[in-house]
Amino acid sequence: MNETVQKLLNHRSIRSFTDEKIPQEQVDLLIDAAQHASTSNFFQQYSIIGITDPEKKKALAKIGNQHYIAEAARLFVFVIDLNRNAAIAEAKEKPVDVLSSTDFFLRAFSDTVIAAQNLVVAAESLSYGAVYLGSILNDPQAVIDLLKLPKLTFPAFGVAVGHPNQSPQLKPRLPKEAVYFENEYHPLEQPLDFLKDYDHEVNQYYDLRNANRRVDTFTNQIAKAVSGAQSENKKKILDTLKAQELLQY
Amino acid sequence: MNETVQKLLNHRSIRSFTDEKIPQEQVDLLIDAAQHASTSNFFQQYSIIGITDPEKKKALAKIGNQHYIAEAARLFVFVIDLNRNAAIAEAKEKPVDVLSSTDFFLRAFSDTVIAAQNLVVAAESLSYGAVYLGSILNDPQAVIDLLKLPKLTFPAFGVAVGHPNQSPQLKPRLPKEAVYFENEYHPLEQPLDFLKDYDHEVNQYYDLRNANRRVDTFTNQIAKAVSGAQSENKKKILDTLKAQELLQY
Repeated sequence: MNETVQKLLNHRSIRSFTDEKIPQEQVDLLIDAAQHASTSNFFQQYSIIGITDPEKKKALAKIGNQHYIAEAARLFVFVIDLNRNAAIAEAKEKPVDVLSSTDFFLRAFSDTVIAAQNLVVAAESLSYGAVYLGSILNDPQAVIDLLKLPKLTFPAFGVAVGHPNQSPQLKPRLPKEAVYFENEYHPLEQPLDFLKDYDHEVNQYYDLRNANRRVDTFTNQIAKAVSGAQSENKKKILDTLKAQELLQY
Repeated sequence: MNETVQKLLNHRSIRSFTDEKIPQEQVDLLIDAAQHASTSNFFQQYSIIGITDPEKKKALAKIGNQHYIAEAARLFVFVIDLNRNAAIAEAKEKPVDVLSSTDFFLRAFSDTVIAAQNLVVAAESLSYGAVYLGSILNDPQAVIDLLKLPKLTFPAFGVAVGHPNQSPQLKPRLPKEAVYFENEYHPLEQPLDFLKDYDHEVNQYYDLRNANRRVDTFTNQIAKAVSGAQSENKKKILDTLKAQELLQY
């Protein structure tokens, strides 16, 4: 096993950072790594916004309801971006309706996430800690307004990067048999029996991690998340995407 | 710069493979690397289907209209998977409607792509070549039927991995200034002027790569792709997603 695979297998999300800064040349390297990822048909349909303004960091931390968003040395918002290619096509007097299709949305989404994971892998290989911030989608419209995102763009998530101030335990993953199949999909039958050992493992993980925190199993977490009430903003995500002229058909 | 970053910066998609096989323990390592990636709220909402059946490989190559899909040592289809967590919640007699929301779709999509990029990075670090196969979405319903994908799942793309039988040139990426901004989005103004040097660079890349192939610029490629006709199957992607009980609201 090489160093890269070793790092991938030891990934932990880091949610507590020291005050130490990250030099600009290292940030440039992270962006460069992101840019060298695969993109669908080489269309490069994403953008990255580095947030350096402390007020904007605070605003995003408030939207995400996670104080550490504002505390990381570097904060990036990854943006699904079909606007750039619309600008190019329009400059050549071409119609751009197809950029509003589900096909292009899915491709641009893939581009965005692949680039983000390259940035995260690069950051971790340089011994920084990183965490994805899906929580900025608590209120996508607020993020759109804050970062002046034009039509045909949408924020996928944030990524915070900094010097780790914690070293959390490795979280146990689902058994391979639940996630990997050959040649066709295998639905989980008797999921609670099948995941009994895994539930126990997750339970122990939480128990060891924090004595003050309520200990739970994987299947309980899923059942709770799925049956909980969804916020009004979360219910509006599809409307917000459509207002950005995405997913029109 | 370390070895991991160096590998990321040197990524090329590989579309021609030797006959050499990949040992099962290496495949297990790739799956393991994929499984150790971040997932939204730790919900792990993706599955991976390894295609070993030569007939299914051929069927996917036909759908994607790319012969090399069937020629790689290993072929994986990455599946957005909200079905597994539905099975868990249903076993605990909880309602699962929220799994059909756009919010959960976006999160599961991110999980799927992040896991896939870990697999690709791991494969490349082990000196294999890899390529994303967005082309399986030429006909998502055919992939759903072929792999027996149940409701609340959807194929994101394929990934082919094998021993490289080519060493293509590094493709020039968009200038950083077109992709990376600080604190707010910067729309491309005068995109054709702004990308003139890049167009020239891409043109040279194609010229060097293959003397027999028509040489083009980046902005021309975009203009053509955006104004070309979209196939009937591509127009149906949103309907297919909805028929899978995804993106209901």
